[in-house]
Amino acid sequence: MQSLAGAGRVASYIPELAKVPAGRFGMALATLDGQLFTVGDARERFSVQSISKVFTLTLAIQQVGEKLFERVGKEPSGNPFNSLVQLEYEHGIPRNPFINAGALVVTDELLSHLPDAKAAVLAFARRLGGASDLEYDAAVAASERKTGFTNIALANFLKSHGNLHHPVDVVLDAYFHHCSLSMSCVELAQAFLFLANHGVSPATGERLLTKSQAKRLNAILLTCGFYDEAGEFAFRVGLPGKSGVGGGIAAVMPGRWAVTVWSPEINRHGNSVRGMKALELLTTMTGESIF
Amino acid sequence: MQSLAGAGRVASYIPELAKVPAGRFGMALATLDGQLFTVGDARERFSVQSISKVFTLTLAIQQVGEKLFERVGKEPSGNPFNSLVQLEYEHGIPRNPFINAGALVVTDELLSHLPDAKAAVLAFARRLGGASDLEYDAAVAASERKTGFTNIALANFLKSHGNLHHPVDVVLDAYFHHCSLSMSCVELAQAFLFLANHGVSPATGERLLTKSQAKRLNAILLTCGFYDEAGEFAFRVGLPGKSGVGGGIAAVMPGRWAVTVWSPEINRHGNSVRGMKALELLTTMTGESIF
Amino acid sequence: MQSLAGAGRVASYIPELAKVPAGRFGMALATLDGQLFTVGDARERFSVQSISKVFTLTLAIQQVGEKLFERVGKEPSGNPFNSLVQLEYEHGIPRNPFINAGALVVTDELLSHLPDAKAAVLAFARRLGGASDLEYDAAVAASERKTGFTNIALANFLKSHGNLHHPVDVVLDAYFHHCSLSMSCVELAQAFLFLANHGVSPATGERLLTKSQAKRLNAILLTCGFYDEAGEFAFRVGLPGKSGVGGGIAAVMPGRWAVTVWSPEINRHGNSVRGMKALELLTTMTGESIF
Amino acid sequence: MQSLAGAGRVASYIPELAKVPAGRFGMALATLDGQLFTVGDARERFSVQSISKVFTLTLAIQQVGEKLFERVGKEPSGNPFNSLVQLEYEHGIPRNPFINAGALVVTDELLSHLPDAKAAVLAFARRLGGASDLEYDAAVAASERKTGFTNIALANFLKSHGNLHHPVDVVLDAYFHHCSLSMSCVELAQAFLFLANHGVSPATGERLLTKSQAKRLNAILLTCGFYDEAGEFAFRVGLPGKSGVGGGIAAVMPGRWAVTVWSPEINRHGNSVRGMKALELLTTMTGESIF
Repeated sequence: MQSLAGAGRVASYIPELAKVPAGRFGMALATLDGQLFTVGDARERFSVQSISKVFTLTLAIQQVGEKLFERVGKEPSGNPFNSLVQLEYEHGIPRNPFINAGALVVTDELLSHLPDAKAAVLAFARRLGGASDLEYDAAVAASERKTGFTNIALANFLKSHGNLHHPVDVVLDAYFHHCSLSMSCVELAQAFLFLANHGVSPATGERLLTKSQAKRLNAILLTCGFYDEAGEFAFRVGLPGKSGVGGGIAAVMPGRWAVTVWSPEINRHGNSVRGMKALELLTTMTGESIF
Repeated sequence: MQSLAGAGRVASYIPELAKVPAGRFGMALATLDGQLFTVGDARERFSVQSISKVFTLTLAIQQVGEKLFERVGKEPSGNPFNSLVQLEYEHGIPRNPFINAGALVVTDELLSHLPDAKAAVLAFARRLGGASDLEYDAAVAASERKTGFTNIALANFLKSHGNLHHPVDVVLDAYFHHCSLSMSCVELAQAFLFLANHGVSPATGERLLTKSQAKRLNAILLTCGFYDEAGEFAFRVGLPGKSGVGGGIAAVMPGRWAVTVWSPEINRHGNSVRGMKALELLTTMTGESIF
Repeated sequence: MQSLAGAGRVASYIPELAKVPAGRFGMALATLDGQLFTVGDARERFSVQSISKVFTLTLAIQQVGEKLFERVGKEPSGNPFNSLVQLEYEHGIPRNPFINAGALVVTDELLSHLPDAKAAVLAFARRLGGASDLEYDAAVAASERKTGFTNIALANFLKSHGNLHHPVDVVLDAYFHHCSLSMSCVELAQAFLFLANHGVSPATGERLLTKSQAKRLNAILLTCGFYDEAGEFAFRVGLPGKSGVGGGIAAVMPGRWAVTVWSPEINRHGNSVRGMKALELLTTMTGESIF
Repeated sequence: MQSLAGAGRVASYIPELAKVPAGRFGMALATLDGQLFTVGDARERFSVQSISKVFTLTLAIQQVGEKLFERVGKEPSGNPFNSLVQLEYEHGIPRNPFINAGALVVTDELLSHLPDAKAAVLAFARRLGGASDLEYDAAVAASERKTGFTNIALANFLKSHGNLHHPVDVVLDAYFHHCSLSMSCVELAQAFLFLANHGVSPATGERLLTKSQAKRLNAILLTCGFYDEAGEFAFRVGLPGKSGVGGGIAAVMPGRWAVTVWSPEINRHGNSVRGMKALELLTTMTGESIF
């Protein structure tokens, strides 16, 4: 893994993220039967960024079920995470909930059904991650608010197509906060366990999604969780998962475990270089994958 | 299922395929421990069309391994199976081996390594399907040769980008023959079992792909096997699989079984309407899927 | 012409514009030797909208000459006026100064060189149009500011590509004001005469552009002045010209005259239906065109 | 001009064209009142290539008038001459008659109305050029037939969309022959004079197009004659014109003259580098252009 140092770059488009030391590396694997394995900086919190889209999507499915997919697709996009091209060709319906445009629509949906979408997502992450002190990182949220011109463009473009029901600023504020959530590998691995357990949190026994919904969410993770590198991740790792530009990746092996890895250097697709390699080694060496 | 009659249309762009009765329906499920379950016309042969791309890809991986992916990608395309758009933007490198352009490149690769690519694919299908009398359907191959202008365009476009090493006509002739292969649901289910068994044929014990290669091929099936409906199939069914415009679909549940369904009416994405529904019911009702 | 009533629709995406009576029709032709011909509502002011882009482009060329074209192209786009697609493929360099993205860049350039870009454009239009009481329509500007989500998206997208040097809000404020300028056909025809006179205002004798610059600006009008209908306008009318969604069109016959027509009903390309027809009849019946 | 030597490259995608000496330079200007001015190799014949599309388009308009434009558009494409992208998005209707796909449709139309389209185009060029010994270059036609995979792809793609009525091979054979026509600058300038004369050949007095048709054809030349460099040519030169990958450019100043220039080195858009520069100098120094 050391040989991959410098193979990617720490995200700089959100200035606040550029301050994170490139050399950090953490990994945590939590099993359904309660075991926990950790490597390196597994308990240091980092900016989860797009991994938060899994929490917002779960909440949105809880609220409106498959009706959500009238406003957002579930097909891989074959385009970068922040692309506007397909959105124009397809009249404002984002390809899937994990590209930025899709996550903005999901956030907009949450705003229609939850009294306080920011508080709800934070509470959900705290409960799932087993950490009542999780917080949004105000500096990261403000940094993105100030320089996230592409996301502002996407939100306005959705609005122009009538696929954003709340004011652009309100949606962006919630979205940027969700992305700024700080969690550690251990907390994220715990939080993803319900997706390895067909929708039921193993810690509390609470059912968060029906079995069918959990299957479907995992399917979207597999086909769309890594933007235009979704095929590569499926090919090399073979697990449903989600990456964030903070360098984190969370993935699940249904029926068995959830795993999180964090290494801040990302490639041009926005995915952690060493994170992907670590997970490839994990599934190749253990022979465990969904395929 | 009956209520879906007429929801799609029998493929007509290959005139010979239009002759197949729309009402046919067959299904076969073969388990790794040797059980076989069938429904309806499970023993009637039909034109496998693009399902044959799984056989050619397997053979190509046997011949050259991952080097194949220098000439063809492994990302979902987000575009129809016969699209030329991405091919132009991406300078003649097809997105994946299951869109037509990608399968033409795979066929071209086979022609470089096998003395007789047509005979080799036929022999491979006979061995896997346990049926020594499998044949190409000459009328179907000729029909496609005569009217397959989009495929001829794709092959010439690949050639213009230097990504076809053999003469266009030679590649097309092999490709159209591979697609014209006739197999039944039972034979296809048997033939796909090695992908449910991590690369080893359960019938003969022969290893066709390494465990890692089988994982990777299944991953490409999951992300790319249904063209611009790959996300939908993963979402509804949750299995690696491949469709053909003849109305067939083959899919696998790794570690457990392979399943094939055949119903000639296809939707505008080229996928069998009742076939997809049947598989969705199978995985939803049994609760078995890779997710 | 009457038979074309109802063939288009009054622009409604800017709510304030939707209030204009659809039946208005005016036309004015001003010759270099001082004659003026008018038809109908030729002295009623209307919102010039994108016709103002000719004024801002002229001022920008005066300020920086051809250096402007490092930030904006001069090729027809083949896409709608508000398209984001090419902007993404071409990394934030708009195809030409007459699509919205290009005009935003031109406005941004003016902001760098003129102490008050809004006042400068207004003064320029007053001088050229021979009407010291021309004004921006504050209600139209405010209306577009409130609902112009696509333009806000474009501006933010340009900003994300580093091709907008001033704050997004400042550029949009100037741009929306420029578009809200109210002028009559007579005033616009007078204002365009310098482009029929190789850069010199016939009224004042003042040189606004060099002969070569006037040629080049007319060339851009011809190839880009009507968005994805530029070919159609050149084909039917055969004059350099510019349309606005307020229903106005201004065009010039170099060496001879300038003409303006106004009819609020526009087609899906944003061009006045009866305006185009009137100009086609003019050039076809008189046999005068640049071709 | 000498300083531009080496700024482009002699076309090599048609191997036969690559044999032409890069240093050749010829220019001819023919006026409506019968004067002729020549520079350099103005009487040496070269492969006119796409300039022949003006002859085929003229013949097609003679045969079917504006009905032609039901099968082919008249908008600039904003894409390279051999692009397939728009053709797919726009369901097989080429953007204009001067991109390759459009010229194939025009050729197909000629085949429907003329007993021998190859002979008719040759006869037409001979008559217009005042040279009864003009010939197709069989070696060039054969060379393109053998390696013109992109054009073969385009033709098959048009066929797949139902926008080619004759067999692909027949259309391509005619098209490749038309392109292989050899003419000198002097002959081409004479041949283009009818477009400077509102449709009437000044040599014979024969009307080839109505005044309106001549205007419209010139308009298409201006907006589409140089592919994705049409705006640049209009901007720098300001004349309707047509280029060929053989290095020739023919242009007209309506009411005045026709001009041809030949220099084999072409840029990446397929247009002669020194040819464009020579014409820019001509219109800039004489102050004559349509704008």
